[in-house]
Amino acid sequence: MSRKMPIIHNRAVIAETRQFRIESLELEFSSGELRQYERLAKSGTSGAVLVVPMLDHNTVLLIREYAAGLHRYELGLPKGKIDAGEDNLDAANRELKEEAGYGARRLHHLHTVSLAPAYLEHTIDIILAEDLYPEKLAGDEPEELEVVPWSLSQIERLLTSGECSEARSIAALYLAAEHLRKRQPTSLDQ
Amino acid sequence: MSRKMPIIHNRAVIAETRQFRIESLELEFSSGELRQYERLAKSGTSGAVLVVPMLDHNTVLLIREYAAGLHRYELGLPKGKIDAGEDNLDAANRELKEEAGYGARRLHHLHTVSLAPAYLEHTIDIILAEDLYPEKLAGDEPEELEVVPWSLSQIERLLTSGECSEARSIAALYLAAEHLRKRQPTSLDQ
Repeated sequence: MSRKMPIIHNRAVIAETRQFRIESLELEFSSGELRQYERLAKSGTSGAVLVVPMLDHNTVLLIREYAAGLHRYELGLPKGKIDAGEDNLDAANRELKEEAGYGARRLHHLHTVSLAPAYLEHTIDIILAEDLYPEKLAGDEPEELEVVPWSLSQIERLLTSGECSEARSIAALYLAAEHLRKRQPTSLDQ
Repeated sequence: MSRKMPIIHNRAVIAETRQFRIESLELEFSSGELRQYERLAKSGTSGAVLVVPMLDHNTVLLIREYAAGLHRYELGLPKGKIDAGEDNLDAANRELKEEAGYGARRLHHLHTVSLAPAYLEHTIDIILAEDLYPEKLAGDEPEELEVVPWSLSQIERLLTSGECSEARSIAALYLAAEHLRKRQPTSLDQ
């Protein structure tokens, strides 16, 4: 907090592909120590959203989707980039319609999380979606996504299923559960 | 689960730096749809660890460290790569000694999480560390890290502090809290 920020003496793009941009940073720490760090820069400027869609007070809608990074199917929350001209709530509602086939009448920004702040610039807004109604929008997915209702009070069973590894989905589920528990103190504690 | 995995027809390294390797994948989904995806491959083969060090039953040790991806200081858990010849518990204990100045007599693997499985191959093992004793090892940090004790029952206050954004640290804290609560049902619920 009170610490002096490192000075960035030089910043250069050292590799760029369709989807990724890698930057090199020449840093000077307040200790005088010089370091060269690499980081992955955000693609685009608008950010991304992760949606926690509540079908009822304890049922969250998960998506089973192919994940190329791990080359396996993952159970996780609907998510995607914020398009130009959208705010994060608009983007959350659109992704929800595209990926889960529901729209939401109530959307609430819970928290913004980073993935690996030491080397990724990426952050994602976690949006709680409630008061759902069926509405399907066509997305850009290569195949139909499977929608899997899950009990929010069974996060641990989701983890032991071995199908959900994504830290930001896990964090979002715990944050949503805590938020809902505080709003209605007894309903999840039975 | 029952879905047929996409076939990888071609896989090529399209950019490589000191720290990152970007791969291109030519994929065919079971629907017949062809797509070209990019992903960030793991650097090294051994994986990484994130440590939840418990000073006592409710006090977790956090680290305040510069995060180049976001160019700010972040409060989070000690972490690092697993070195050649180490298992994940060895690596967790070494990182704990380097970053927090403590060793642990009890280490337990809680879960393995991914960051963004759609485009990152990276995973990290979450290790609960207990029965701590002071022991400092020299690390490769550019400056002394600040160790910040935090109450595990105050995760929400940590988030509203604005200093902790990292989804995997947040997920790890909730997982540890749940694990400890189940082991000693009443101690965190007072």
